[in-house]
Amino acid sequence: MRSPRLTIELPSWVDGLVDWQRRYPRPEDRMALVIAVGHEQIRRATGGPFAAAVFERDSGVLVAVGVNLAVPSHNCVLHAEVVALMMAGAQLHSHSLGAEGMPQHELVSSCEPCAMCLGAVFWSGAASLVTGATKGDAEAVGYNEGPVFPESYAHLERKGMTVVREIMREEARALFAAYQAAGGEIY
Amino acid sequence: MRSPRLTIELPSWVDGLVDWQRRYPRPEDRMALVIAVGHEQIRRATGGPFAAAVFERDSGVLVAVGVNLAVPSHNCVLHAEVVALMMAGAQLHSHSLGAEGMPQHELVSSCEPCAMCLGAVFWSGAASLVTGATKGDAEAVGYNEGPVFPESYAHLERKGMTVVREIMREEARALFAAYQAAGGEIY
Repeated sequence: MRSPRLTIELPSWVDGLVDWQRRYPRPEDRMALVIAVGHEQIRRATGGPFAAAVFERDSGVLVAVGVNLAVPSHNCVLHAEVVALMMAGAQLHSHSLGAEGMPQHELVSSCEPCAMCLGAVFWSGAASLVTGATKGDAEAVGYNEGPVFPESYAHLERKGMTVVREIMREEARALFAAYQAAGGEIY
Repeated sequence: MRSPRLTIELPSWVDGLVDWQRRYPRPEDRMALVIAVGHEQIRRATGGPFAAAVFERDSGVLVAVGVNLAVPSHNCVLHAEVVALMMAGAQLHSHSLGAEGMPQHELVSSCEPCAMCLGAVFWSGAASLVTGATKGDAEAVGYNEGPVFPESYAHLERKGMTVVREIMREEARALFAAYQAAGGEIY
C-alpha cells in the first residue's frame, strides 16, 4: 500500500454557471450567487445541497466557489465551505486569506457552518462570515452540525471576525426542500 | 478566472519511512509510528510538527497517514488529521470510515485536534480517537486550537466515539521542541 494522490476539483458545470468577471457588492448579491450554485448542484446531482464562496470583502471580487463533494469524492471533509477555502488558498497562493498586503476576504455560505467548517473559517484568515440558512434549518431536515455552540461563534468574534447571519435565509433554506424533492440522500 | 484543480499528496519520504505491512496492535505502537512520522516531517521541513494516522481499530492494520501540509500547500485545512482522514477515505473508497460492512477505524493524532479537526473526526465515522500531546501543550508553544470546549468532546462521546488522551504525551509533546529547535515557524 502507498499513499494515494488526491485530486480535488469542482464539477465542470461551475465555470459555466458562475460569472467570474462581475462584482458582487452586497451580501445579497453574494448569497444569491451561492444559492444559484447550490440549486445547480442539486439539479446536476453532483453532491449535497450546500454551496459557499469567497469574495474580496470590500471590492466584491469573486475569488472562489465551493460545493459539498463529500460523498462523490469519498472525502468526508469536502463540505462546501472547506472546498471554497481550499480553492481560495490555491487562487491566492496562500494558506491565509488574511495575509499581510492582501485585501480582506469574506466567506459566504448557504448554511451556518458545521463544527469542522467553523473551525476551518477560524483558520482561514477570512475577516467575515455571512450565512443563509441556520443550523436549526439544516438539523430540521436531518443534517447534524456537530459540536457548534454559541461560544464557538463568540470565540471567532473575539478574534476579530464579523459574523452576519440569515441573509436570504428563506431562499437558502429552500435548497434543502429542493434537494429532498430531487430525491437527494441526507447522510 | 477558473476554478483550480488541487492535488494533495504526502511528502515523498512518507512511503520510505512507513512500514505499511506490519500490524500496529497497541495504542503505543500506533502513537510511536505517528511520532516517528512527525519527527521526519520536522527533519525534512515539509510542514508543521503534527502527524496522524488511521488504523483498523481491532486488527491494527495501517490505513492512512497524514502530516500538516497547510503552509507548503497554501491550504489552511490540511492539518495532519484532515490529511489522514482524506487519505483514508481515498483508500477505502468511502466518505465514511464507519460504513456498513467495514471494520471500525481509529484516528491517532500526535496532538489533541483543533476545532476543525475535531469536527472532521466527528464526520469521519471513526470509532475512536487517540491523542498524544494536549491542547495546552500546543498552546504553550503558540498554537491556537480554536473553539474546542469540554462539551465538544462530550458531544463526540455521546455519539458513541471513544476518546483516549495522553498516550505517550511526553514523546508527542517533544515534537514541538524539536520543531522549534529546527527553526520551524509557528503560524
